[in-house]
Amino acid sequence: MNYRETVLLEKAYRLLNHGPTICVSAAHNGQQNIMTAAWNMPLDFAPSKVAVVLDKQTWTRQLLEASGTFAISVPTRAQVNLAQQIGSLSGAALLRDTQKDKITTLNLQTFTGTTTQAPLLEDCVAWLECKLIIEPHIQQTYDLFLGEVTAAWADTRVFSQGHWHFEGHDELRTIHHVAGGHYFIAGQAIQSSATGPSD
Amino acid sequence: MNYRETVLLEKAYRLLNHGPTICVSAAHNGQQNIMTAAWNMPLDFAPSKVAVVLDKQTWTRQLLEASGTFAISVPTRAQVNLAQQIGSLSGAALLRDTQKDKITTLNLQTFTGTTTQAPLLEDCVAWLECKLIIEPHIQQTYDLFLGEVTAAWADTRVFSQGHWHFEGHDELRTIHHVAGGHYFIAGQAIQSSATGPSD
Repeated sequence: MNYRETVLLEKAYRLLNHGPTICVSAAHNGQQNIMTAAWNMPLDFAPSKVAVVLDKQTWTRQLLEASGTFAISVPTRAQVNLAQQIGSLSGAALLRDTQKDKITTLNLQTFTGTTTQAPLLEDCVAWLECKLIIEPHIQQTYDLFLGEVTAAWADTRVFSQGHWHFEGHDELRTIHHVAGGHYFIAGQAIQSSATGPSD
Repeated sequence: MNYRETVLLEKAYRLLNHGPTICVSAAHNGQQNIMTAAWNMPLDFAPSKVAVVLDKQTWTRQLLEASGTFAISVPTRAQVNLAQQIGSLSGAALLRDTQKDKITTLNLQTFTGTTTQAPLLEDCVAWLECKLIIEPHIQQTYDLFLGEVTAAWADTRVFSQGHWHFEGHDELRTIHHVAGGHYFIAGQAIQSSATGPSD
């Protein structure tokens, strides 16, 4: 059964607002790759934008720069080993040494969205497709990439009407990287009683 | 008792790596302000850098741009109402309407670090002082501010030797904003069994 449903672009920031570790992917000219990235954040509400840091050595970055698009998949507690493997293996080295790309090597199940060719990782809980906002100076100097969100989806079992609700779905909780193989999962939902902007 | 100890700058990224919501503060010419910011991420290991999004309307941003420095405090579950208040009140409006700044109005307990004048919020679990990396184009276009970390501390009850350890200190868990008054707290620590770079 498919629980994937479209998220309104103006609510797409909520998929990343709580700081999950993500997988970033890109495709160009028949080649594709995916990597794990803890360093990401929303950048704007409307049009929806995101920022992500991608090391110069990554093949995903090369494909992203060549295609001008990328995708984000938000992995779950059930996928923590997969996220760690995706973050540890070099797609470029695999291709050079084995003639197989990372997606084939790890037997990753992916699907294609509606606005990019970048592979989206199955069994994640959220997905965003993005158009690269070309800013060569910060890309080169800080490895910092900005994107405008062109499509977004979430798993309705844990995200609907603009809100996460992980209760009863602990295996679908997002993961939050610390270092090495260490992660936190998204924990208890709490509500501030302080006055503030309404939701 | 004071549990605050210095964090090595090359490990400072770990204070933000798991995506907590932070308070950003700045001081200039005897004036100071603090705001809440969910949109933040590490940007580099060494020299340690961070990125944060600060809306044009915020007074903290004006003080940051004037002083060329800012500070980050990482609030806790016990402080969620405070973080929400800090994020909801306009320091500029308060000063205009009451002649009192936000820190006075909310009776915030703060201390000064070693490399900036920006107020650091007491009872948080981590603190970073930063020197603004001046990048006018992205500041103006995307409200995106980069900083080089010049000093960092953490509460040794929950962070030591480069690692978070919240067990037994649920009230000190970091908070991760979703929207409105909704937050997650950092949950269970998990360890990937996949092969990867050692920690």
